[in-house]
Amino acid sequence: MSQEEIHQFDQALHLNGEGDIRQGKTADPYKNMIGPYGGLTAALLLKGALDHPKRIGEPVSLTVNFAAGVSDGPFEIQVTEIRTNRSTQHWFITQNQGDSVVTTATAIFAKRRETWESTQLTMPPLPPFEALEQINAGARPPFAKQYDYRLRGGQAEMFENLDAEGNRSSESLLWIRDTIPRPLDMLSLTAMSDIFFPRIFVLRGQLVPAGTVSLTIYFHAGLAEVEKIGVRPLLGHARGGRFWNNYFDQSAEMWSESGDLLVTSSQIVYFKE
Amino acid sequence: MSQEEIHQFDQALHLNGEGDIRQGKTADPYKNMIGPYGGLTAALLLKGALDHPKRIGEPVSLTVNFAAGVSDGPFEIQVTEIRTNRSTQHWFITQNQGDSVVTTATAIFAKRRETWESTQLTMPPLPPFEALEQINAGARPPFAKQYDYRLRGGQAEMFENLDAEGNRSSESLLWIRDTIPRPLDMLSLTAMSDIFFPRIFVLRGQLVPAGTVSLTIYFHAGLAEVEKIGVRPLLGHARGGRFWNNYFDQSAEMWSESGDLLVTSSQIVYFKE
Repeated sequence: MSQEEIHQFDQALHLNGEGDIRQGKTADPYKNMIGPYGGLTAALLLKGALDHPKRIGEPVSLTVNFAAGVSDGPFEIQVTEIRTNRSTQHWFITQNQGDSVVTTATAIFAKRRETWESTQLTMPPLPPFEALEQINAGARPPFAKQYDYRLRGGQAEMFENLDAEGNRSSESLLWIRDTIPRPLDMLSLTAMSDIFFPRIFVLRGQLVPAGTVSLTIYFHAGLAEVEKIGVRPLLGHARGGRFWNNYFDQSAEMWSESGDLLVTSSQIVYFKE
Repeated sequence: MSQEEIHQFDQALHLNGEGDIRQGKTADPYKNMIGPYGGLTAALLLKGALDHPKRIGEPVSLTVNFAAGVSDGPFEIQVTEIRTNRSTQHWFITQNQGDSVVTTATAIFAKRRETWESTQLTMPPLPPFEALEQINAGARPPFAKQYDYRLRGGQAEMFENLDAEGNRSSESLLWIRDTIPRPLDMLSLTAMSDIFFPRIFVLRGQLVPAGTVSLTIYFHAGLAEVEKIGVRPLLGHARGGRFWNNYFDQSAEMWSESGDLLVTSSQIVYFKE
């Protein structure tokens, strides 16, 4: 297969070598304003453990800590197996550049069996993907062009986001999929879970210096469920919690079109003032 | 000061030595059904980094992964400084017994400055602490006796938890404080953030085998704000997300009586069937 036929998400996730230490390179199409898109970095660290020959089960939990900016160029992904139990497995993963650790992660995998089931959250209503207008990503960082997002409030929702009472809101509701269609897997689901721009932008209606310091993703679907989605979009729902003294939290859910809650996630984000 | 004058929470948090490797011992008063109360373990791992001579700033984010049961007896807390920036610091922490890692954590600390502020969540209404009845912890594990909790629905809310429409609910609203009063600090705030029993108990109205595998806490207050609370109770609010194939997530907030959102947290919990 030629380079052109490989989806650029897979190109960006390419790691040389195998096992505990692997080599990668930052990818221009997934650049954010400064450094790579955090969702791509999260997927890269998860991939380090997911590909490991000793890995068992499927991802249950992933926490990624963004310790420093990632410079353009090569990096290493280093994976440490912390503990393997009968049905669960714990990993510690770092992304290194030179002698520095720039990102760390912990991942938990598990062999899952069918159990009692319940979803306590309600999927919020949104017109179908095809009925909403694609956001113009022209003025935004390169990674945003790799995703086709369609917001409830259209383009305006990004900076003029008002709730039913006309107050500014930190909440967004959107459809998302890869701009160049690619069947969903655990890595693209991970990357898409970080797609919500910092809630402080929508709440204050302006860009302010901000960057995620920690992201946690809980997986409520296995690979079989995720593969059924194929190239159909996901519904994403995000809102902020408290904005106080340089940090705020935001939480989010990703749903399938058919109403399955695939992922719940939370993150804490630095902001300057 | 005699042993009797030291609060048992401080006794349970006692670590010998200083720096990267310290020694502790499990504490009977904070036992759960199997092994120690997870909130105490979270506080112990945070304390390893918080006490470290190289620590800067205050806790912003803590993720604790429960990799294996902790046996009664001695353990080590091992702290690794991953990276220190100008105003932020990243740590990796493990709890070890013999040659095994039983718990891991990552912690992020930061020097915070005053900024623009907003709370997007609403503090749910609950009658005052003094107006609600103390839950009888007699039949529950030892750690539950160390906390004075008062539930919106009283004792019944634990296993007959119905929402306004009369449906079973995974949501709880309660006041909590130490049974033997102790002024709040970052460690007791951490421990109390895990006080909500597994949401599957309240949703199904029965005890089922369950245990947290990962807990994430975001701090929205510094030590100065936390110390102002003294021995007054915190309001806790928790609910479940999705229960599917052996795992479910729950999220929670802790509020001060005066309406400050101190902590948002989430966890993913194993359940058997």
